[in-house]
Amino acid sequence: MEKELLLMMPGPVPIPERVRFAMSRQAINHRSADFGAAYADCVRVLKTCFATKNDLVVISGSGTAGMEAAIANVSRDKKIACLVNGKFGERLYKISQRYGKATEIKSEWGTPLNLEKLKEELENGAEVVTLIHNETSCAIKNPAEEIGRLCKKHDALFLMDGITSIGGDTVEVDKWGVDIAITGSQKCFAAPAGLAMVSVSPKAWERMTKNPPYYLDLAAYKKSASGTPMETPYTPAVPLFLALREACLIVEEEGLPARIARHQKMAKAVQAAAQAWGLTLFPKIDKLHNYSSTVTAIEYPAGVKDDEMRGIVKKMGIIIAGGQDHLKGKIFRIGNMGSVGPLEILATLAITQHALKKCGYAVKGDGVGAAAEVLG
Amino acid sequence: MEKELLLMMPGPVPIPERVRFAMSRQAINHRSADFGAAYADCVRVLKTCFATKNDLVVISGSGTAGMEAAIANVSRDKKIACLVNGKFGERLYKISQRYGKATEIKSEWGTPLNLEKLKEELENGAEVVTLIHNETSCAIKNPAEEIGRLCKKHDALFLMDGITSIGGDTVEVDKWGVDIAITGSQKCFAAPAGLAMVSVSPKAWERMTKNPPYYLDLAAYKKSASGTPMETPYTPAVPLFLALREACLIVEEEGLPARIARHQKMAKAVQAAAQAWGLTLFPKIDKLHNYSSTVTAIEYPAGVKDDEMRGIVKKMGIIIAGGQDHLKGKIFRIGNMGSVGPLEILATLAITQHALKKCGYAVKGDGVGAAAEVLG
Repeated sequence: MEKELLLMMPGPVPIPERVRFAMSRQAINHRSADFGAAYADCVRVLKTCFATKNDLVVISGSGTAGMEAAIANVSRDKKIACLVNGKFGERLYKISQRYGKATEIKSEWGTPLNLEKLKEELENGAEVVTLIHNETSCAIKNPAEEIGRLCKKHDALFLMDGITSIGGDTVEVDKWGVDIAITGSQKCFAAPAGLAMVSVSPKAWERMTKNPPYYLDLAAYKKSASGTPMETPYTPAVPLFLALREACLIVEEEGLPARIARHQKMAKAVQAAAQAWGLTLFPKIDKLHNYSSTVTAIEYPAGVKDDEMRGIVKKMGIIIAGGQDHLKGKIFRIGNMGSVGPLEILATLAITQHALKKCGYAVKGDGVGAAAEVLG
Repeated sequence: MEKELLLMMPGPVPIPERVRFAMSRQAINHRSADFGAAYADCVRVLKTCFATKNDLVVISGSGTAGMEAAIANVSRDKKIACLVNGKFGERLYKISQRYGKATEIKSEWGTPLNLEKLKEELENGAEVVTLIHNETSCAIKNPAEEIGRLCKKHDALFLMDGITSIGGDTVEVDKWGVDIAITGSQKCFAAPAGLAMVSVSPKAWERMTKNPPYYLDLAAYKKSASGTPMETPYTPAVPLFLALREACLIVEEEGLPARIARHQKMAKAVQAAAQAWGLTLFPKIDKLHNYSSTVTAIEYPAGVKDDEMRGIVKKMGIIIAGGQDHLKGKIFRIGNMGSVGPLEILATLAITQHALKKCGYAVKGDGVGAAAEVLG
C-alpha cells in the first residue's frame, strides 16, 4: 500500500486517528446499553450542531438515503417545489419526482436561486420545499433563513439538505424553521461515510404521508430511538456509529463556534489565494447568496487542462476535485471540511499554485502567501 | 471499557482482528481504482458464495435495505406470495405490502412452510415469491431448491433472503433459480454490520418495475458497478467495504466448502448438546425442512426463566439470544456464524449448561461432552 493521498475534496475527508480506531473495536450487540450510549452521545452533539430541539435519528446509509428519507416521509402525492442551482439540488428534484408532484425551480448552476418563482409556487399551493443549503457542486451557499421564512408564511414544510454545512458552518434549524434537516457523517464531522442524520420537527411528524420505503420510515427510527437503551429499527452499521460518536466528542472538545470559525477561515484563505492568482470564483453571488464556507470552486484560466492540473496535484500527494457533469474541465474545487487546518490548506495551495504554473498559467501573485496572511 | 462480551447470537458476530483493523485505514476516495479494487474483490468472492454468475452489487445499508431493494425493484403493483414461518418472513411480507398485492402464506413460526398453498397462489397468478432461506427467529432451514422449482414452473420471480445462510451454508443461487438473492455483511461473513449484497438474474432485470426508492434502485447500482473503476451510485460506507474485502479474502483462504462444513459441524455440536441435556429443538421439521446450520433454537424446560438463564451466561462473558416477539421466554438461540470454532462453541455450551443447572433444570446428560465428540 502506498502512502495515503490527502483528500481535499468536498468529502469524504481525512478522518482523525481517534475516529478511525474507534472502529477497530470488537463487535458489540446493537441492542445493548453500550450501543445505546454511543447513539445518545451522537444525538446530543448533533442536536447542538443542527441547533435544534427536534427529534433526531441516524440512518445507516449515505447522505442520499437521508435525502430520500426527508422527502419520502412527507411528500407522497404532494406538491413539491424543488430549488435547484447545482447537482445536489437536481438530485432532490429527481427523488421528489418519485413521490409527489414535483416542480423544479431552476437556476443556472452556481447562480442565485429564483425566490420570486418560489413565492409563486407557494402561492399556487406548494406544500413541501426542498433546498440544498450548501451546494457543493458549485460552492454556493443558499439563503436558508430567507427560504424558511417564505415556507413558514405559506405553511409549507421546509426540507433542507445540510450535508456539507452542518457541523462546519452556521446552521439554525429551529430558528430558520427547517422541518426536516439532514447531514452526512463524512463531511464536516470528519467521520467515515455511511451514516445520514435526520432531524424532524413536530409539524413534519404531523404531516407524515403514507407508505415511505420501509427502510427509510422515520417513524420506525423515532420509535426505536425513544426506548431505553436507544436503538435503531434495523441492524445499524455499528462501527460507523462508534466512529461518529468519537467524531462528535471531538466536535464538543473543539466547541462548535470555534469549529465553524475555523471552517470559515479556511475557506476565506482559499478564496484569497484564488484572488491573488487572478482567478475567478465560480459562484455568482448576490446579497442573499454567499460563497460556501466548506468548499471553494475556482474557474480554470483559459488553456489549463483539468486532467493535467489535478494530475500534477495528485502526483504530489493531494486529491482536489474537478467539476461535475457540464462543469467538468471548467472548474476545480478545494474542500476544507472536517479537521482541515492551515497545514492541509497551505500544502494544497502550494501544490495547486505550482501545478497552475506547470500547466502554463502565469499566476498574478502569490496565492499561498495571501492565504497564509488570512490564516494568521 | 470492560472486556468485550463474546457474541454468540445469530449476528452480529465476532469480527476477526484483520477485518476490524482494515477499517482503521485513512479515508480513501470512493471514486478511485483503490476503492474499485476492494469492491471487485468483494464481488468475486461473493459470487462464489452465492454460486451465481448473475450481477451482484453491494448496498450501504443493513440487510433490511437489501430485502427492500429485492422487493421494491420488481414488485410494484404485482401479485406477491410471501412464505412466512418466522419473524423475518413476516418482515418480507410487510415490505411487500408497500409495493404490490401481497399475500401471506403463513405457517406457525418454526413449522414447515405451506407449499400446497404456494402452488395455489402460483396457479392464481402470483408473479413474485419471497422466501427466508434460513429463518433465524426459529432456526429452521426452508426448502429453497423446491420453492425455486415451483417458481420456475410458473414463471414467477423468486426472491430469496440468504442473510444468515450465504457464506456459511450451501446456497446455489443459479441452480435453484433464485432471481434476487440477498445477504448481509455481519452474519456468516464475520464482517461488521452495514452492507447488503444483492444478486440479480437476467430475468429479474427484464422485469424491473417502475419507481423503486431512489436509494435502492438496483439499475443505478448495476450501472456504477459496470464502469472502470467499479463504483457505487452514492457515497459508499468505505470502511465497511474495506472490512468486507478482508472478510472475503478470509473466506477465500479457508475455502468455501471447508467454511460451510465448519458451520454445519458447529451447529450439529450445539444440537447434540441440546439432545444430551434432554431439551427439545424448537423447529418442527419434515423431509423438506431442516435445522439451521448457522443458529440453533432450543426450547426452555419448564421453570427456567429466560432473563435469569441468559443473565448468568452474560455475566460469565457471553451473549446468547432469547426468542423474539411471542417466542420471548420460550426459546433461547445460539448462533455459530462467521469465524466461530470449537473454542467459542464449547465455552458457550459449558456456560449454558452451568446456567441451566443454576436455574433449577437437572440436565439429563453432559451436553458439553456430547458436543466435543461431534467436534472431533
